[in-house]
Amino acid sequence: MKLKSAPADPPGWETLSRETHFENAHLSVADVEVRSPNEPKTRHWTVVFRKAAVIIAPMTADGKLVLVRQERIPIRAAIWEVPAGQVDLAANGDDVVDGYNIVALRELREETGYEVSAGGEIIPLGFFFSSPGFTDEQGYFFLVRPVEPGADGPAHTDSESILDCRAFSPEEVTNMIASGEIRDANTLGICAKLVADGFLSLHA
Amino acid sequence: MKLKSAPADPPGWETLSRETHFENAHLSVADVEVRSPNEPKTRHWTVVFRKAAVIIAPMTADGKLVLVRQERIPIRAAIWEVPAGQVDLAANGDDVVDGYNIVALRELREETGYEVSAGGEIIPLGFFFSSPGFTDEQGYFFLVRPVEPGADGPAHTDSESILDCRAFSPEEVTNMIASGEIRDANTLGICAKLVADGFLSLHA
Repeated sequence: MKLKSAPADPPGWETLSRETHFENAHLSVADVEVRSPNEPKTRHWTVVFRKAAVIIAPMTADGKLVLVRQERIPIRAAIWEVPAGQVDLAANGDDVVDGYNIVALRELREETGYEVSAGGEIIPLGFFFSSPGFTDEQGYFFLVRPVEPGADGPAHTDSESILDCRAFSPEEVTNMIASGEIRDANTLGICAKLVADGFLSLHA
Repeated sequence: MKLKSAPADPPGWETLSRETHFENAHLSVADVEVRSPNEPKTRHWTVVFRKAAVIIAPMTADGKLVLVRQERIPIRAAIWEVPAGQVDLAANGDDVVDGYNIVALRELREETGYEVSAGGEIIPLGFFFSSPGFTDEQGYFFLVRPVEPGADGPAHTDSESILDCRAFSPEEVTNMIASGEIRDANTLGICAKLVADGFLSLHA
């Protein structure tokens, strides 16, 4: 895995040691010893380092959200979720190959076959941490609107297993969240952002 | 780490092999080979196995959410989030030591010092996957209402670093989500569930 070569400590934080136990193309597991701004004692922690991801809310002109149904091996289930993908780092380990906007639009096209309409926009909505108790993984949220089916259709890669793709109304999304059919952090997270930002209404 | 000794495959799924690369009290990293219902070819995947967690939305009688500000070593930052904690497994590896409801109420008390009021209720809101592309980690959501400060105050454990605890109005929570001050999957996820279930309104 290409990690940023020496992630700089934020002000007040000091990484005293980092012992890597396992590393492959997808993740790196290390024990770190850290001093933080608010604890006199140093602490040891097991951290899983991961690339950042982009997470896309594709919204149609009539306000529907485009979701994909995807087999996820770690949970051995197929679930409905927003399209998303990892952001690859350049060979030097410090730069990304493409900007996050470009990756978001590419993942949208590859996973759903939808594209941003002429005159449409891509709106960055900040980022979140998927599980900050054990991993540094960050997901960057983007709203893309309006979207429409492209001429070429989706282009799924070998590692993905996307079974279906469909646009859902806000009422359908609300019911799928309430029933637990939507049950992944990416989709719940970007829905909370869209609601707080005024781009989506979820009515119980 | 105490993993369930032999996690049964769901219908249509078959785990052909599992090679563990690293394991400690917090996580287990393995390469699995899996056959899924919709792919003729078997696939290899790196999975991080984790205990389940409980995630609590403590709501006061006047509709505020109680959050804690906590240092998180994997992201080297202190963030405002809902209380949460891992669910310990029994020595046999198959049973949990305490029911999820009990763990949720204990984590609430330990992290915030708040308790459920007399006549209050704990409402299970389902679960989510924090990052189903690489980990099986699940978080079980609970709404506890109404809550009030207990007589004993919080009881923080050594591994936690909770700096602050405060109740926030729905308007404040909305602004914190929109600004990115709230930026973890647990808090965004439970807020989306609360909104879809009609327990919380986020107004932009």
